[in-house]
Amino acid sequence: MNKIYLDNNATTMADPKVRDEMSAFVSQMYGNPNSLHTFGTEVHPYMRLALDRLYKGLNASDEDDIIINSCATEGNNTVLKSVWLNHIVNGSKKRIITSQIEHPSVSETCQFLETMGVEVIYLPVNQRGIVDPDELRKVINPKLDALVSVMWANNETGLINPIRELAQISKEAGVPFHSDAVQAIGKIPVDLQSVAVDYLTFSAHKFHGPKGVGALYVRAGQKITPLFHGGEQMGGLRSGTINVAGLVGMGLAMELATDYLEYEDQEVRRLRDHLEDSLVQIPGVMVIGDRDIRTPNTVFASFKGVEGEGLLWDLNRSGIAASTGSACASETLEENPSFKAIGISSDLAHTGIRFSLSRFTTKEEIDRTVDAVKKAVERLRSISTTDLS
Amino acid sequence: MNKIYLDNNATTMADPKVRDEMSAFVSQMYGNPNSLHTFGTEVHPYMRLALDRLYKGLNASDEDDIIINSCATEGNNTVLKSVWLNHIVNGSKKRIITSQIEHPSVSETCQFLETMGVEVIYLPVNQRGIVDPDELRKVINPKLDALVSVMWANNETGLINPIRELAQISKEAGVPFHSDAVQAIGKIPVDLQSVAVDYLTFSAHKFHGPKGVGALYVRAGQKITPLFHGGEQMGGLRSGTINVAGLVGMGLAMELATDYLEYEDQEVRRLRDHLEDSLVQIPGVMVIGDRDIRTPNTVFASFKGVEGEGLLWDLNRSGIAASTGSACASETLEENPSFKAIGISSDLAHTGIRFSLSRFTTKEEIDRTVDAVKKAVERLRSISTTDLS
Repeated sequence: MNKIYLDNNATTMADPKVRDEMSAFVSQMYGNPNSLHTFGTEVHPYMRLALDRLYKGLNASDEDDIIINSCATEGNNTVLKSVWLNHIVNGSKKRIITSQIEHPSVSETCQFLETMGVEVIYLPVNQRGIVDPDELRKVINPKLDALVSVMWANNETGLINPIRELAQISKEAGVPFHSDAVQAIGKIPVDLQSVAVDYLTFSAHKFHGPKGVGALYVRAGQKITPLFHGGEQMGGLRSGTINVAGLVGMGLAMELATDYLEYEDQEVRRLRDHLEDSLVQIPGVMVIGDRDIRTPNTVFASFKGVEGEGLLWDLNRSGIAASTGSACASETLEENPSFKAIGISSDLAHTGIRFSLSRFTTKEEIDRTVDAVKKAVERLRSISTTDLS
Repeated sequence: MNKIYLDNNATTMADPKVRDEMSAFVSQMYGNPNSLHTFGTEVHPYMRLALDRLYKGLNASDEDDIIINSCATEGNNTVLKSVWLNHIVNGSKKRIITSQIEHPSVSETCQFLETMGVEVIYLPVNQRGIVDPDELRKVINPKLDALVSVMWANNETGLINPIRELAQISKEAGVPFHSDAVQAIGKIPVDLQSVAVDYLTFSAHKFHGPKGVGALYVRAGQKITPLFHGGEQMGGLRSGTINVAGLVGMGLAMELATDYLEYEDQEVRRLRDHLEDSLVQIPGVMVIGDRDIRTPNTVFASFKGVEGEGLLWDLNRSGIAASTGSACASETLEENPSFKAIGISSDLAHTGIRFSLSRFTTKEEIDRTVDAVKKAVERLRSISTTDLS
């Protein structure tokens, strides 16, 4: 029996086409692209193609920078620490505005910066689980604020923040705007001509590219102090020998992700809705967040009287991979910050399971998953001491 | 006619065995190792094996940390900035000691830290081109110094610093010692039981592993403030989804590099010596640095009256890849800092070519290279205006 992978918000399978495209750059075309000889220069057209695919996928302008790095965690650290070093250390600004539901690579970095004297404002989310633009309007102050950083879509709930509006508010206030788009790319359109984002971060492995490569988009006119000082790669903005195979893979992954956006919006959404509709027919099942503001591949459901981790194990035994939340904190099972913000109790949060689909998910897999969930919930409730009334 | 690659200090071909070992972790065993389900846990034994291979290759103790990251540039930035944040920002120390011949990922980071108020001492090299331990003894001061950072072997000349002695001096003074070992691993023994290095950095792509992955060794008892804040990967010391394929490839590459150390010392050295002996028979050719303190794969030769770049192009047309120096600065052809330190004039430095061999280099390739160099030098000198007398 084939295993079923419904944890695509944690990481995805690299598309076999991506794997094949990368393979020549490991042991054949292995030159360092900074070298002047043929081994170095022969990879340039492939790097150029990959970069073109990234620019096209994001609808970025030729004047903007796309800095290749190792992952979105690196990109998020780069943006936040660059802003600190450029604008806060010298006293010209003092604050960073972010939200209460960011990924740890933003929230933990902000907490580190607080220990360095940076003031951080954590915007709450409203009852729909997203950042209310009015909350940003209330506090933003160009004299104090060096950056606004709000994630495009949440990794745990799939809820989509009103990035266009938040970025516009920041632009009008003259404060640079950053978005961690790691959960948006390949799931919903990310069009940098129509959204005034100044910095955007993402990882290839979240959209069927390889692990270990990502990028930081920087709009023309914005500055970056590098997180990696060193050689002159990436115009001196990100030193270190370029991961050519990774870049080539990420480029094709971006092109495919863009090509599949309609499929994602139609077919993946239909499978997700089918899964969701089936789950909520089970008594005591609640889904977090409205469908219309959620990425089309994600459903986070809570199962009254069932420990999320217990359900995860039962599903795992049936060959189905889901998650109790972010893989980045799976070892500690910390309370889900999104849920806390929405106002869902810690108890309820602990009964939650995230299913995240992909373009490789099939109807048959979803049907098998629904059956397995029903059986597992029945079994777990039969041995549970929680009052289900 | 097959091309000949003699630029292995810039980057190496991933060993085909390494490529094959990695391939299953791209589109088959692609789970996030932090996930609790089978897709996540099934990769753990392979990661464990890869880590064991790294520990064994370095002869590291189980209590030490080996933090997987994206490259040595990341590792070098992590160590230097961690020391700054931990010991200098709070005023307990004020200085970092390094050398004049470091790779840009150390020297440029030090220059950045100088702009942040850190005092940096750049140890000179002696006439043999290496750091004299007495120079360190003269200046080291545990009340002032937060770190000593000296590269194990130089990327351009292959000259090997007396790391054991430098590390011992630092240990006795109570100052942590870091070494960028990117040019040492796989070329000469790096035994962390016999050398008192506290922090060691390297990149897999320099020893026939893949690009985009490296590691930072941290001796038990030493601390690191992460360069990437975020999730709890690597014990919170380096966040970001682990590049499983990269780690698996680096592990095997380390094992192979260790297995081939004797071959490197015997056979690669013999080929390098043959190349060197042949080159110095050409009139006006000088080799930088004594053989007995050089990595066995490297020879940097200067050709009087010949522009290094011109020679590089002639060789490239013959299908031979060499370098005028570090690929990290190849676009600017800056004056070689090692040469300056040794006391070689800028003019002479510009006539230099680095040949760096590997275990894949053959005798036939070296013979073809010698012939091609002779022809190129003859041609270039015939059109040169330099007085060769």
